[in-house]
Amino acid sequence: MGFNTNSILLILGKVLVLLGLAMILPFITSLIYNESLAMIAFSLTIIPSIIFGSAIVYKIKPTQAPVKIRDGFLIVATIWLLATIVGALPFTLSGSMPYVDALFETSSGFTTTGASIIKDVEILPRSILFWRSFTHWLGGLGIVIFAIALMPQLNIGGFNIVRAETPGPSVEKLSPKLKDQARILFVVYMCMTLAETFLLKFGGLTWFESLVYTFGSVGTGGFATYNASVGHFEGSYVPIVITIFMIMGGANLSLYYTSFKFGISKLLNDAEFRCYMAIIGISMLAITLNLMFMDVYSPGIALRESAFQVSSVITTTGYATVNYDLWPTFSKCVLFALYFCGGCSGSTGGGPKVIRVLVLLKFIQRGILVRLHPNAIIDVKLDGKPLSADVVSAITGFAFLYLTTVVLSGAIISLDGYDLITSFSASFACIGNVGPGFNLVGPAMNYSFFSDWSKLFMTFLMLAGRLEFFTLFMLFTPRFWNKDR
Amino acid sequence: MGFNTNSILLILGKVLVLLGLAMILPFITSLIYNESLAMIAFSLTIIPSIIFGSAIVYKIKPTQAPVKIRDGFLIVATIWLLATIVGALPFTLSGSMPYVDALFETSSGFTTTGASIIKDVEILPRSILFWRSFTHWLGGLGIVIFAIALMPQLNIGGFNIVRAETPGPSVEKLSPKLKDQARILFVVYMCMTLAETFLLKFGGLTWFESLVYTFGSVGTGGFATYNASVGHFEGSYVPIVITIFMIMGGANLSLYYTSFKFGISKLLNDAEFRCYMAIIGISMLAITLNLMFMDVYSPGIALRESAFQVSSVITTTGYATVNYDLWPTFSKCVLFALYFCGGCSGSTGGGPKVIRVLVLLKFIQRGILVRLHPNAIIDVKLDGKPLSADVVSAITGFAFLYLTTVVLSGAIISLDGYDLITSFSASFACIGNVGPGFNLVGPAMNYSFFSDWSKLFMTFLMLAGRLEFFTLFMLFTPRFWNKDR
Repeated sequence: MGFNTNSILLILGKVLVLLGLAMILPFITSLIYNESLAMIAFSLTIIPSIIFGSAIVYKIKPTQAPVKIRDGFLIVATIWLLATIVGALPFTLSGSMPYVDALFETSSGFTTTGASIIKDVEILPRSILFWRSFTHWLGGLGIVIFAIALMPQLNIGGFNIVRAETPGPSVEKLSPKLKDQARILFVVYMCMTLAETFLLKFGGLTWFESLVYTFGSVGTGGFATYNASVGHFEGSYVPIVITIFMIMGGANLSLYYTSFKFGISKLLNDAEFRCYMAIIGISMLAITLNLMFMDVYSPGIALRESAFQVSSVITTTGYATVNYDLWPTFSKCVLFALYFCGGCSGSTGGGPKVIRVLVLLKFIQRGILVRLHPNAIIDVKLDGKPLSADVVSAITGFAFLYLTTVVLSGAIISLDGYDLITSFSASFACIGNVGPGFNLVGPAMNYSFFSDWSKLFMTFLMLAGRLEFFTLFMLFTPRFWNKDR
Repeated sequence: MGFNTNSILLILGKVLVLLGLAMILPFITSLIYNESLAMIAFSLTIIPSIIFGSAIVYKIKPTQAPVKIRDGFLIVATIWLLATIVGALPFTLSGSMPYVDALFETSSGFTTTGASIIKDVEILPRSILFWRSFTHWLGGLGIVIFAIALMPQLNIGGFNIVRAETPGPSVEKLSPKLKDQARILFVVYMCMTLAETFLLKFGGLTWFESLVYTFGSVGTGGFATYNASVGHFEGSYVPIVITIFMIMGGANLSLYYTSFKFGISKLLNDAEFRCYMAIIGISMLAITLNLMFMDVYSPGIALRESAFQVSSVITTTGYATVNYDLWPTFSKCVLFALYFCGGCSGSTGGGPKVIRVLVLLKFIQRGILVRLHPNAIIDVKLDGKPLSADVVSAITGFAFLYLTTVVLSGAIISLDGYDLITSFSASFACIGNVGPGFNLVGPAMNYSFFSDWSKLFMTFLMLAGRLEFFTLFMLFTPRFWNKDR
């Protein structure tokens, strides 16, 4: 066998146990609200998961054989698939939705996408809604820790692609050990979670609501407990809190620790963070002016709504306070352009990531300069340091794979027969882990009307986008499975 | 002065004379059809152009100073601008349209785009329609000769980016001298023109119609003399002839000469040509099956219509036999995907070019393999030869500039307030020199409703797309105009 099967199985066993343990929280919720069907559903998932997972961990002997890159890819891909398959069970066992829908919803949760197939959220048991949103939080935590601990070795994840190659005071040098880094990120994530929960509770929400909306914003997911999304709290202080925490969740979390330790200048001088804030600022301004000019809102409201929607889309959260699909076309264009951007590396946000966009912009600039001075040597620089050609080529390669996948997936989704905007924005919104798109999948709509086949395909797309393609696509190459390698 | 002003002025003077001479053909047409307004309009343009142009050529003394790269860029950009500004005059002087519309129409003509602001083509004087279509033919010839003679030096034009770097029997080695190459291309282009004209005449068209539709297809432009475009001849033998010549016009013209001289295998073994034919074949098949499956047409008609539309879009011609905007979404998606492709290098077609798409696909494939084997050295190969990193990076840089421009331009066009599909497909169709887009700019519509501001912007976009951006964008960099360089 070419794979380190023992190590893979061991990790999967541990994941199974962790999943079972994680579901104890929604199980408790079902006890609190006395939701009997949900109680049974969670029990039926928790008990076998923990037993089966423990059995694996107990039976399989750890080997001394190294975990190779190929093993790493397989591990990452199977963890996400396993979490989706097991995490979907309570939705179906509680009678809330068919299993295909549950797979879509769970994958949307773990990948912090926030696209939903639920037509009426408000009739579902609260424990089920809690689990649904909790998957955002778990997925967000997972992706941040992956980005630090696993992805650098696998050479994926925006983050490392650039950082691992640049010398100097970079993020992974924070602390020498991976475990320490993971712990730091966990603490940052917990602090953000607690802070937002209390701020929302303070704003008059119930504890249940505070937690659900915190999971959705800190994890940049977007699942809500009301059909109107955050629009339920429109005009109150709640959307402002959520705006701030979405923006925080979309930035590189390890920067918070660095600036806590070495001063705020670490944050303010970070090239990716500056670019991220600049894109948010410019987009907000453009949309505010457009909304004012077109007399959609008064200036104050225009700024407020534009700030919320821009933050929601760039961080790939997908919350909405208003149906921005009814906004003037230019405003929708600006939001659409943000689909090409996404959150920062090392954040819970999806999409192609700000750092890649930044490098690509510099790469384009270089292209123009090179043509003007064919004999000059012009580097693409980041934080003042030149990037190697390999790094730039990894980023450009990723961007093409991304766009090609979006276009081809849009074509496949269009086989369901819905219009171009619906098909392509669904493809974009799933791959970029944003959630809502435009037209039939707009912020006031949901994904329920798609065929089962399309729902499964989009489930795959959300995972593919979250794992940044290469991990998942690699599993489809014959070379990957070649034993003799 | 940093520029070789004398050489630049000399070339512009020659272009002015050539433009004046070219207009003698439509002037003769106006005599034949006795169109007095057009007669006056052409005279008023021809006489000053030739006099003023000759004066420049006569007065300016050629210098021994070399024509530098920067001069080359300026020359290319000003030739196209001058041709548009002068070429637009007869449209306005004959009272056919305002000057802004005329600029749009002429730029659309010379760039072989085929987007039109004319609501009713059928009421215009025939000599004006002749000139309108003749600009396609002139533009097509111009771009093919540029591609061979000028662009390799300027390092633009898809063609050379790859070919100039690959050793072995490549196209520019055809003949040692640039003039010979230009002559060969002119002969190929003339043969194609004559062949199609006679084939169309044979099919029952008038000489006037035969010439107009030949200009539109050989030049991959798309201007027609009927509001129904080629749909006027729907079901006849005419669309079949046009299909074949569009496909021929979208391939590398110099390959025809090479295969004429060294055997057809030169054509069949060319990587770009194979990729081009493969894309056409797959797209045709996908659309045919979709149209049959959705019961839009019977199999035979589905194949015929799909062949015509696929050829029209990939070659960026833009002719239509039916309103494909009413086709099922999947078929529209396939056509839309072809907007990302375009014709072959060294063809009259626009868009990003097949060779770039091919290199990008190989680049993506390489990206996956590199991640699987981080220590292996894997090259992007074309025709069995590895491409240098510089070549790959020039192509990826171009692709990003292309997509960024399309998205930002779509946002700017959307300020007119039309829907997303209209705005973005207009941006795509102008930059890719296709012509029609979808929705309000669909194949059965036109560009007349846009604001003057947007029309001027799109005039610029068509030129930018045709000159492959760098040439034009460079003129906007301060460094370009810096005297002290």
